[in-house]
Amino acid sequence: MIQLPEVIKNAVEALTRLPGVGEKTAFRMVMSMTHWRGAELIEVGNAISELRDLKLCQDCGMFSEAQFCSVCLDENRQSIKSICVVENHADLIAIEKSSTFKGTYHILGGVLNPLLGVGPDELKMDELKNRIIEREVQEVILAINPSVEGDATCSYFKTLLPETVKVERIGFGVPIGGNLEYLDPMTITKALENRKRF
Amino acid sequence: MIQLPEVIKNAVEALTRLPGVGEKTAFRMVMSMTHWRGAELIEVGNAISELRDLKLCQDCGMFSEAQFCSVCLDENRQSIKSICVVENHADLIAIEKSSTFKGTYHILGGVLNPLLGVGPDELKMDELKNRIIEREVQEVILAINPSVEGDATCSYFKTLLPETVKVERIGFGVPIGGNLEYLDPMTITKALENRKRF
Repeated sequence: MIQLPEVIKNAVEALTRLPGVGEKTAFRMVMSMTHWRGAELIEVGNAISELRDLKLCQDCGMFSEAQFCSVCLDENRQSIKSICVVENHADLIAIEKSSTFKGTYHILGGVLNPLLGVGPDELKMDELKNRIIEREVQEVILAINPSVEGDATCSYFKTLLPETVKVERIGFGVPIGGNLEYLDPMTITKALENRKRF
Repeated sequence: MIQLPEVIKNAVEALTRLPGVGEKTAFRMVMSMTHWRGAELIEVGNAISELRDLKLCQDCGMFSEAQFCSVCLDENRQSIKSICVVENHADLIAIEKSSTFKGTYHILGGVLNPLLGVGPDELKMDELKNRIIEREVQEVILAINPSVEGDATCSYFKTLLPETVKVERIGFGVPIGGNLEYLDPMTITKALENRKRF
């Protein structure tokens, strides 16, 4: 059996650490990269290494090039006194893409999960509570994904806040473009519960 | 709309250069990489950059750490006087995995394709012809994929060789695990043509 050079084996092993990339896919990627110019390989390699320089906004926890992200620095958005709580960066970006929410965000860093050892101290809950109280935020929108852990996280967090703060959770139901035929019974139940006068 | 840091944009752009990776997949990969340790990011980045150090065997064109690859250095394999001609590295590895062929290889670097400007000079044809004549190779197995261009490449290459060299092409038919119902008519035609006494 032919012995592949170490550089190939290393590159294949490195790429299999990416989500959704198995050994075959990684191998195909490396085969394609063997046709690249040296400068291009260095460019891509550096782009990955440089992710270590990523900073987080000290307010909301979003990726940022400075101490605070562009959303937290925007006075218009700060003045709205509404915080949207999300689990992670990708969820924040998804909401931001809808261009609907005009306030600021807070990244919790996950949801409570006692089985995996994720308690309130592992999440940015105290920071969120302090932000809400210090800045007199009047509205908290919990954009936490629907799951047993997500539901528990929302319930627990509500108990931390003064009753004067309006706490809401995003709506659940049939997604736009969705088809009742292919949706799970739980979503249908939620869609029926959340019906609105037409 | 939130502005993502340059390092994220660069990493996403870099990963979309990989085959089969679109912007969404690249973004998901980068999101997952933001949770890695700095040392791991450097490791993966370097594994990609170091692909530029890859050498090619001066005989067969396979990836190699030295001047010649392990197959070409193997005297047992050299003594067999049989060369298997493949289009690219991945095809060579696929054949080597079957552990069936005991001779040496030659990577052509593609197939003739006049429309894309690939003529005999763009492929390692002269090198192959010289190897065959100098080393008195008696058998050439064309493991070129079946396509109009592949067929033309095989026909053209045969005309370059002395008639004493036995030139063969790998067999075409129903793949093991394949199902007649789902195979294309051309494969069925080949399978019928290539039938053997049972």
